[in-house]
Amino acid sequence: MAYQNTVEQKIMWGDLDSLGIVFYPRYYEWFDGSAHLFFESLDINLNDLMEKRKIGFGLVETGCRYFKPVRYHEIIWITTCIEDLADKIVQLNHRITLASDGILMLEGFEKRICMDLSDIDHIRATQIPKDLVEKIRKQGAVPNTK
Amino acid sequence: MAYQNTVEQKIMWGDLDSLGIVFYPRYYEWFDGSAHLFFESLDINLNDLMEKRKIGFGLVETGCRYFKPVRYHEIIWITTCIEDLADKIVQLNHRITLASDGILMLEGFEKRICMDLSDIDHIRATQIPKDLVEKIRKQGAVPNTK
Amino acid sequence: MAYQNTVEQKIMWGDLDSLGIVFYPRYYEWFDGSAHLFFESLDINLNDLMEKRKIGFGLVETGCRYFKPVRYHEIIWITTCIEDLADKIVQLNHRITLASDGILMLEGFEKRICMDLSDIDHIRATQIPKDLVEKIRKQGAVPNTK
Amino acid sequence: MAYQNTVEQKIMWGDLDSLGIVFYPRYYEWFDGSAHLFFESLDINLNDLMEKRKIGFGLVETGCRYFKPVRYHEIIWITTCIEDLADKIVQLNHRITLASDGILMLEGFEKRICMDLSDIDHIRATQIPKDLVEKIRKQGAVPNTK
Repeated sequence: MAYQNTVEQKIMWGDLDSLGIVFYPRYYEWFDGSAHLFFESLDINLNDLMEKRKIGFGLVETGCRYFKPVRYHEIIWITTCIEDLADKIVQLNHRITLASDGILMLEGFEKRICMDLSDIDHIRATQIPKDLVEKIRKQGAVPNTK
Repeated sequence: MAYQNTVEQKIMWGDLDSLGIVFYPRYYEWFDGSAHLFFESLDINLNDLMEKRKIGFGLVETGCRYFKPVRYHEIIWITTCIEDLADKIVQLNHRITLASDGILMLEGFEKRICMDLSDIDHIRATQIPKDLVEKIRKQGAVPNTK
Repeated sequence: MAYQNTVEQKIMWGDLDSLGIVFYPRYYEWFDGSAHLFFESLDINLNDLMEKRKIGFGLVETGCRYFKPVRYHEIIWITTCIEDLADKIVQLNHRITLASDGILMLEGFEKRICMDLSDIDHIRATQIPKDLVEKIRKQGAVPNTK
Repeated sequence: MAYQNTVEQKIMWGDLDSLGIVFYPRYYEWFDGSAHLFFESLDINLNDLMEKRKIGFGLVETGCRYFKPVRYHEIIWITTCIEDLADKIVQLNHRITLASDGILMLEGFEKRICMDLSDIDHIRATQIPKDLVEKIRKQGAVPNTK
């Protein structure tokens, strides 16, 4: 199995909607946070990358399928792995399971493109730098079929 | 063309991330808000529906493709229409264009399922009530192919 | 009466907590947005100010008193004025009333300090530039007692 | 010293504004979350309290003073204690320090009133139930001067 990173999180009152279940855009916030933590676990600090090397990973597409609602103070695990890695594109997969019983609550993805941020008003796609690909490979985080 | 509803919105400082572009989960917040306003424009108040009739439209799947970043104090239009209508399912389409020049910035969808909320701890799928389908049809909001 | 600027807003489903009333940090988001729109109404674009002149208005203190809860799809008015203006400090007042009957729902403030952002890692307080004070005065937005 | 509860949190990309520092309404979200966790640490589950006994702790007033900005992936501690306890009112204090060096970054409060939620459309103030006061006292969470 490919390398994955897991984040534990507790559902807060402010995450809930009027039905007492998590308001779905929150899941995307957590996907984004988990993406950053996934890269950090590979020794890639996305903030440094942007500030110092003017390289970022912008969103091309995101999506999520919801199986079960999550509720107040439940503890979830967000497990992130790389689904696909190409020249300019990396697709992350995020699975959210309930810590108490491991049931899969929802599953989503982020398709991110490597961006040259040297001119912030004209962001353009660029190749993922070789040293980053190397760090990803070294950890075994590239899907098996590649 | 099928019936659609458009919401105008101005991008606020708090919607931006550290790159000065909209943090993407915000778009899903606005999709959700626009879904509620779309139904309201069809004389369907989703909150009343939940409180009084214990009927809701929960998320099965959502997704979004991002074409261009949106920035500080830009004005966007969120245009919502029904992409698909089935027994228990309604799929909404949301397109976000820049008010100034009409350029398409991103496009997303919400696939929602009609839920029986009479037992909030055991939410289950149910048929969309006939009077709601009637309101949707009356406004011409059903896709042409149906 | 001193100059004031009013923003109209509709409460969305995603603004509500599990009790069906607005989750209070949202009000601070709207105070922040209304502060930006207040300055814009005085021909001061806070984003340009930061990007081009490296001047910002950071938060020193905020606060809010809550009188009545606001609910689904209610329309509110957020009215902003300057409560106090000093060398480096501007204090904004925000009042939220219900559009339907004018009832005061809550009232808050933001005390902001003028910041020199030329070194983002060492932000420091600075005097409010004279041309900004002039724009504020010209609109009659300085409290009477000054 | 009175009883206190501490929550550890890591700053996420989505918590930042365009200057790369935490957008201030986020702090209030965390104050709210920490309030719930504080009560949970006293064996008081606020969600159960609302659902089963129709008792809640609504906001009367909140406030915050900001000393230093918090940045990407910094780890903070949010320490919560009771500042004041009266018949119907409990005031919580929240201090946020940087985990790495213990520096105080900001400090805020929430003044909450005990609410009878049996009629959600006519929420009214009520006395804090005796068994809850007892749980608070038992843990030594009442300020010394009381």
